[in-house]
Amino acid sequence: MTIRTTPPHGTPPPLPPLAGGSGAAEALRPLLDTVLGALATGAAARGGPLPAGGPDAVTARVRAALGDVLPAHGHGDHEALRTLVHVLAAGAADPADPLCAAHLHGPPLAVAVAADLAASALNPSLDSWDQAPAASAIEALVTRALAAELYGTPHPGAPHPDALVTTGGTEANQLALLLARERHRAAGPLTVLHGANAHHSVPRAAWLLGLPAAIEIPTPTGTLHPADLDAALTLARRGGHGPGPGPLLVTATAGTTDAGLIDPLDALADLCARHGADLHVDAAYGGTLALSPRHRHLLSGLDRARSITLDLHKLGWQPVAAGLLAVPDSALLAPLAHQADYLNATDDTEAGLPDLLGRSLRTTRRPDVLKIAVTLRALGRDGLARLIDGTCAAAQQLARLIDAHPGFELHAPPTISTVLFRPVPTDDAALAATRRTLLQGGRAVLGRATADGRLWLKATLLNPHTTTGDLATLLTLLEGSTHR
Amino acid sequence: MTIRTTPPHGTPPPLPPLAGGSGAAEALRPLLDTVLGALATGAAARGGPLPAGGPDAVTARVRAALGDVLPAHGHGDHEALRTLVHVLAAGAADPADPLCAAHLHGPPLAVAVAADLAASALNPSLDSWDQAPAASAIEALVTRALAAELYGTPHPGAPHPDALVTTGGTEANQLALLLARERHRAAGPLTVLHGANAHHSVPRAAWLLGLPAAIEIPTPTGTLHPADLDAALTLARRGGHGPGPGPLLVTATAGTTDAGLIDPLDALADLCARHGADLHVDAAYGGTLALSPRHRHLLSGLDRARSITLDLHKLGWQPVAAGLLAVPDSALLAPLAHQADYLNATDDTEAGLPDLLGRSLRTTRRPDVLKIAVTLRALGRDGLARLIDGTCAAAQQLARLIDAHPGFELHAPPTISTVLFRPVPTDDAALAATRRTLLQGGRAVLGRATADGRLWLKATLLNPHTTTGDLATLLTLLEGSTHR
Repeated sequence: MTIRTTPPHGTPPPLPPLAGGSGAAEALRPLLDTVLGALATGAAARGGPLPAGGPDAVTARVRAALGDVLPAHGHGDHEALRTLVHVLAAGAADPADPLCAAHLHGPPLAVAVAADLAASALNPSLDSWDQAPAASAIEALVTRALAAELYGTPHPGAPHPDALVTTGGTEANQLALLLARERHRAAGPLTVLHGANAHHSVPRAAWLLGLPAAIEIPTPTGTLHPADLDAALTLARRGGHGPGPGPLLVTATAGTTDAGLIDPLDALADLCARHGADLHVDAAYGGTLALSPRHRHLLSGLDRARSITLDLHKLGWQPVAAGLLAVPDSALLAPLAHQADYLNATDDTEAGLPDLLGRSLRTTRRPDVLKIAVTLRALGRDGLARLIDGTCAAAQQLARLIDAHPGFELHAPPTISTVLFRPVPTDDAALAATRRTLLQGGRAVLGRATADGRLWLKATLLNPHTTTGDLATLLTLLEGSTHR
Repeated sequence: MTIRTTPPHGTPPPLPPLAGGSGAAEALRPLLDTVLGALATGAAARGGPLPAGGPDAVTARVRAALGDVLPAHGHGDHEALRTLVHVLAAGAADPADPLCAAHLHGPPLAVAVAADLAASALNPSLDSWDQAPAASAIEALVTRALAAELYGTPHPGAPHPDALVTTGGTEANQLALLLARERHRAAGPLTVLHGANAHHSVPRAAWLLGLPAAIEIPTPTGTLHPADLDAALTLARRGGHGPGPGPLLVTATAGTTDAGLIDPLDALADLCARHGADLHVDAAYGGTLALSPRHRHLLSGLDRARSITLDLHKLGWQPVAAGLLAVPDSALLAPLAHQADYLNATDDTEAGLPDLLGRSLRTTRRPDVLKIAVTLRALGRDGLARLIDGTCAAAQQLARLIDAHPGFELHAPPTISTVLFRPVPTDDAALAATRRTLLQGGRAVLGRATADGRLWLKATLLNPHTTTGDLATLLTLLEGSTHR
């Protein structure tokens, strides 16, 4: 007998079904059908890479469709799914559309999205073994394998590379700074140095962690020059925040957000070694080039970092979240060790129950590693390299089309898959307006970046299905929409 | 023409399909069928609430199934999904099984899991409008509606309650401490006070944020007594960390992890007002009682908090992540304001593009709000109240069964849905061993908690489908497994 409140008259309706248990497939199948139907009707209603009309129009449509967010009585499972998934899809900027190419916001693979469903349905939580017996074992195997891709497979008995799963590059950068702060706690407050080309999450993490304000080093050419880092480190060692020279952490970038450039990692690692500074590399964007025999050489020196940020929702085609922070030795993760008796009591740990609480700052944590594991197995090393190489080739192709076109100026040949370019003639204000006009009309999603003192349009190519025809369409569209 | 590397002989196989775009439904449907099939075969292979054999056996099975985590050549989408989803399900602690009742780890509703699929497929990212036009509008409407449930609907022109979406209660508590730190930055370092009954994430957040160590107030009866808080606040005001009395933040709990108890919020709010301290309430577990006319009274005083942690993966039946941090006035979120030109350049914001970056410490962020929105609409206010009331009633029923049983001792009647009890006779070591024996045998997942100086078994009921028969089965199972 189910315990429930029986109304005075009649039988209550059945309780809404759960996603787990023995009847899960029967419960989920019709609901998933409704979701797939609403994804299709929503995409058809949108009819382009993003909805037309701009923020006010989209918000008005959402508000009208939703009405009362928490109604007195339910509309039922199917109506709710139909309504909300349709409105989400009709108002999406779909990264699977080749004309949606602004951000490091990639189109996920169908196989990864299907895998993610299993994570939601079983809802394992990676804060204790008895909430995630298999999920925690999968995570341990996959994170060690990925870390070994970046740091090399260890000899038996040597320290083993390891990685933490994060919500993205931002959390990975936060953890990198936190590990450095704790590693050097006895030596005084940590000073963080980063290029102006670093992701905004690096100085924000210093603020979050209560560290002195991070020191920004200008990067007029888009990458961090060794001579500039040398000067900054020399200065920082003289004027530490404490009584003597405090600990230093340099953050370099492999795949800048604005231009997809890669800092000279080997030269920067040399300097860090000479000055006694730790090196962290934010390779959220560029890190998966390590899986491509053709592009791996671009990351030379990466394995000299004390920690590496990697983000598989970019050049890894995962749905968000799929971040990682890799370290060359799992012992480097010790500062995260933490105890809570209900999750990892000492006698339980001694009796063999794995202690998982030190693998995140989160407590409850979904197994985002599952979709990654499925993707690695489904595609294999050569399948992933093919997607990476194809995406980089598309960016080279776009650059060639722009370079050959009299109406556009190319900033530089792309290093990874980001292309900066401008219509000619234009000025910064007109260029920003062009971008907004494309958004407002629902015609294309392009980004923006400042380089060499000017504003540029930014195309971040992440869709391996993009064709030469799609790229030509993008340029034709721009020709007709440019503010001058 | 797709840009790709064509091998010297023959046509390359098609690229793996994406989850978005016009062919999404056709690409996803067969893969989802494979997932549903593997969820069923995995659950059948498990045959109970969790896998038998303990950590070593589960890890060995996972390792054997996976083999090479990153093979040279891919196994294909279906094989990968079949293999990994089967091994995940076969090794899951399934919260939809009524004998899986250890943690605040609830069984998600099928409708919420189905909705989550749409979030993964379209992959909107909530860090800029042009990555999430509709998703950001849905989030704004739902977070304001939920915050108004806790703080009351504002009069026109009055400050509007608001909420941030987080990865869970832990991140919400971190944000609560961060907002307090920044609000009082000019007044010196923040001192955080919390009961010993508070979630471990509260003192951990103080550490993360570089604050002085949080002050723990003993809670021998399981809740924070006003007299003890009064004494602690008096002491803290005398011996602040700075030159004078610094700012103070008190964290109270509505739904403790160990026993599901609720601190006397009104009395604690009075004391905070008297001492000039801010009050944060961690209502991760108990907060949704606000949606039940029967249980709402338990939260009296909650709306006097400067911030409230809420977590809908507990008594809200969402898959992880589904956390929230609510505040009575959206202006209180100002310390999170942040700029990154590629996401919220000033001229874009002035031209009407919404600035979303100040709604999280993350950058890329998936729309976890979608499944919440769908659930609220599908069930409505009365449907949610029925699940909450039914779950609380199941806990009362379990407590009655225990109280009537000569082989068990009940700690206390439950406040929400947590029941602490012990076999009699037993001692702490034997009780911990009993719990591990049940885990090792794959027979039941129960938690543990210390109260009144002794260790207790903890049953955290979160499954609204649990029947009286299930509860009787649990006690029968325990009778036969108890170490004495």
